Amino acid sequence: MRDVVVLGVGMHPFGKFMDKSLKELAYDALSRAIDDAGVSLRDIQTAYVSNAYAGLMTGQESIRGQVVLRYAGFSDIPIVNVENACAGGATAFREAWLSVASGLYDMALAIGVEKLYCDDTARSIRAIASSSDVDLMAGLGFQFSANYAMGLRKQMAEYGWTQQDFARAAVKNKRHGSLNPNAQFRTPVTEEDVLGSRLVAWPLTLYMCSSIGDGAAAAILCSAEVAARHRGSPYVKVAACALRSAPFEDYRQPPSQPKTQDPKPQSSAHWLPVAREAYERAGLGPQDVHVAEVHDAMAPAELRLYHALGFCDPGEGARLLAEGATAIEGRLPVNPSGGLSARGHPVGATGLAQIAEIVWQLRGEAGPRQAQGPDGHGPRVGLAQNSGGNIEGHQAVTSVIILAR
Amino acid sequence: MRDVVVLGVGMHPFGKFMDKSLKELAYDALSRAIDDAGVSLRDIQTAYVSNAYAGLMTGQESIRGQVVLRYAGFSDIPIVNVENACAGGATAFREAWLSVASGLYDMALAIGVEKLYCDDTARSIRAIASSSDVDLMAGLGFQFSANYAMGLRKQMAEYGWTQQDFARAAVKNKRHGSLNPNAQFRTPVTEEDVLGSRLVAWPLTLYMCSSIGDGAAAAILCSAEVAARHRGSPYVKVAACALRSAPFEDYRQPPSQPKTQDPKPQSSAHWLPVAREAYERAGLGPQDVHVAEVHDAMAPAELRLYHALGFCDPGEGARLLAEGATAIEGRLPVNPSGGLSARGHPVGATGLAQIAEIVWQLRGEAGPRQAQGPDGHGPRVGLAQNSGGNIEGHQAVTSVIILAR
Repeated sequence: MRDVVVLGVGMHPFGKFMDKSLKELAYDALSRAIDDAGVSLRDIQTAYVSNAYAGLMTGQESIRGQVVLRYAGFSDIPIVNVENACAGGATAFREAWLSVASGLYDMALAIGVEKLYCDDTARSIRAIASSSDVDLMAGLGFQFSANYAMGLRKQMAEYGWTQQDFARAAVKNKRHGSLNPNAQFRTPVTEEDVLGSRLVAWPLTLYMCSSIGDGAAAAILCSAEVAARHRGSPYVKVAACALRSAPFEDYRQPPSQPKTQDPKPQSSAHWLPVAREAYERAGLGPQDVHVAEVHDAMAPAELRLYHALGFCDPGEGARLLAEGATAIEGRLPVNPSGGLSARGHPVGATGLAQIAEIVWQLRGEAGPRQAQGPDGHGPRVGLAQNSGGNIEGHQAVTSVIILAR
Repeated sequence: MRDVVVLGVGMHPFGKFMDKSLKELAYDALSRAIDDAGVSLRDIQTAYVSNAYAGLMTGQESIRGQVVLRYAGFSDIPIVNVENACAGGATAFREAWLSVASGLYDMALAIGVEKLYCDDTARSIRAIASSSDVDLMAGLGFQFSANYAMGLRKQMAEYGWTQQDFARAAVKNKRHGSLNPNAQFRTPVTEEDVLGSRLVAWPLTLYMCSSIGDGAAAAILCSAEVAARHRGSPYVKVAACALRSAPFEDYRQPPSQPKTQDPKPQSSAHWLPVAREAYERAGLGPQDVHVAEVHDAMAPAELRLYHALGFCDPGEGARLLAEGATAIEGRLPVNPSGGLSARGHPVGATGLAQIAEIVWQLRGEAGPRQAQGPDGHGPRVGLAQNSGGNIEGHQAVTSVIILAR
């Protein structure tokens, strides 16, 4: 397959935009991506569009992408609507990558757009629960926050992590978000603020959790040959895209032995299979990653992801965080954008906001939240991990995308 | 890109199945496709799943494919949910084709599943209307039958077609459906029956229209190399997949001159752009097609499609039909399955039912509805045309897939 580059990215800030439609949000993100890429609408040959909940929020099913892209001025290109819950944006990116890598098209758009704020918050909550098996789970009251809380309690037992460790993740990401003009939450918080905020599902408190949100994000991908013909920003290569369905983690398995009895877990056995696949496809390892955006729908989810992505040994996440290694100033900044818990999480757009952040980081354009990279000349390899949906306690979809300059 | 073959197909009969869930319908179609291909579940490396309305019908959004395929026994393969209204099944097939043609995977599943029957028909009707721009159209009462009726009235003015011509299309397809054990409607009708059935929107009467329906259909695609390693049925090559968005036809343009003043429209200017693209990719032309499944959501839609696919000159469709050329016994059987108007139209599954029919026809396995091909040895090239959704009077998506043995 051909080398593919990300020629441009753009996003509409995430937040609460009651007076903007899906069409307007998408148009804004698209316009910014087109400007960033230095191309025109006519250069784009195909589009993959991610949206999770318009069917339930506005009644728009089936042709969501055609509707928003026609508003933006597209006419007769192939448009494919993709869904994969919170990983829908990552899935759109991967399919757009494949459409170019295969040689079928020279330039493709991946765009994600979501509106979750409305006059009826119960509707938004029901919509989000539809990313589980509705026959078995949503109908019985399943909510993602409770499911995350169960996983975190298991990790507390397994690794000795505390609620304070979890609060530190929220503090870090809210600080990062305060430096990001596209973030939904831009107010820094303290550990005391986090621990003192309303309990959602123990050990989760309100300030650890992502919110509902509105927003859009887009990426324009093209072949390396075509990229060379366009001016526009310096571009970034797609080193690997990997996508998997459940099992992400299996809560039904007995917990493993306490960490103290297992002092040298050096293998990659604890990695996410999808991460292993991405590293293999990229010919890289976790030690090569200089910046990452990970799926902290609840900020404490980061801690387990650190070892699931190979950034540390199992259970070492709390120490890594406490040492500041994953802060913007650290050796491996994680969620410099603020992550889902601070930048925001308009579901179908999230995966592409991660891509946008990694691209800005690799191009050295992230301003006050810019990662410095191993030698002070900026990061050269970035990773975006995204997951979504839940079936019987398993994450239904996980994605790892690696970009490099 | 690599050559890709359809190793096996399967479908759950289309119809009204109040006691079967999406999971059960999908499992049935998948099992049949797996048996037909002579493979096991473990051989399938990725899946593309089409469903249009579960979000509105059952509340299942976002991870529809993961939910139905987990029930079927899949674990951790990449699953992508695609939507493109009535062309969703064709889109899933195209994306599965690309995943194999690109070399990313050796074997892929495309499956479409839909349930439109429920205790509340108004819900089903609202769901279907969501395949338009809901802001501009569904909210104002848009229905597909009325939109088709407007298009047909324009064609009557333009080509001199009559309501009797349109009835003949329904008679042909209902007769074909009567020979198909998978068809929703298996009772032959006469022209008098069709013209005497309840008026839906002039010139459309009830027997000309497809109904809501339940069902599922699946195809297993693999590389030519892998196909050679499997026993199973003789297989069929994918000669081309092409997909486009609107405009399909532009009702806002002034009608062209009456046909009598334009006696020699020999060019391909009237072809669907997506058909021209498919023919070019396949290195074939309309004269090479021996059997076709086309999108007759309303049976009379066939007549225009005959010239839009290059099977005749503009306006010659009624004559082609009246001569019997497009009946099973004719030189170019169209909709031998019965088409949408008789085999049925469970929206997300329809495109893959078309593929299944073309595969059976090319393999000579279509029983009493078998096309004979140009030399009596069966058809060698088959075409499936699928379209869906509507934005401002334009079909939002169109697909043409050409298969060959």
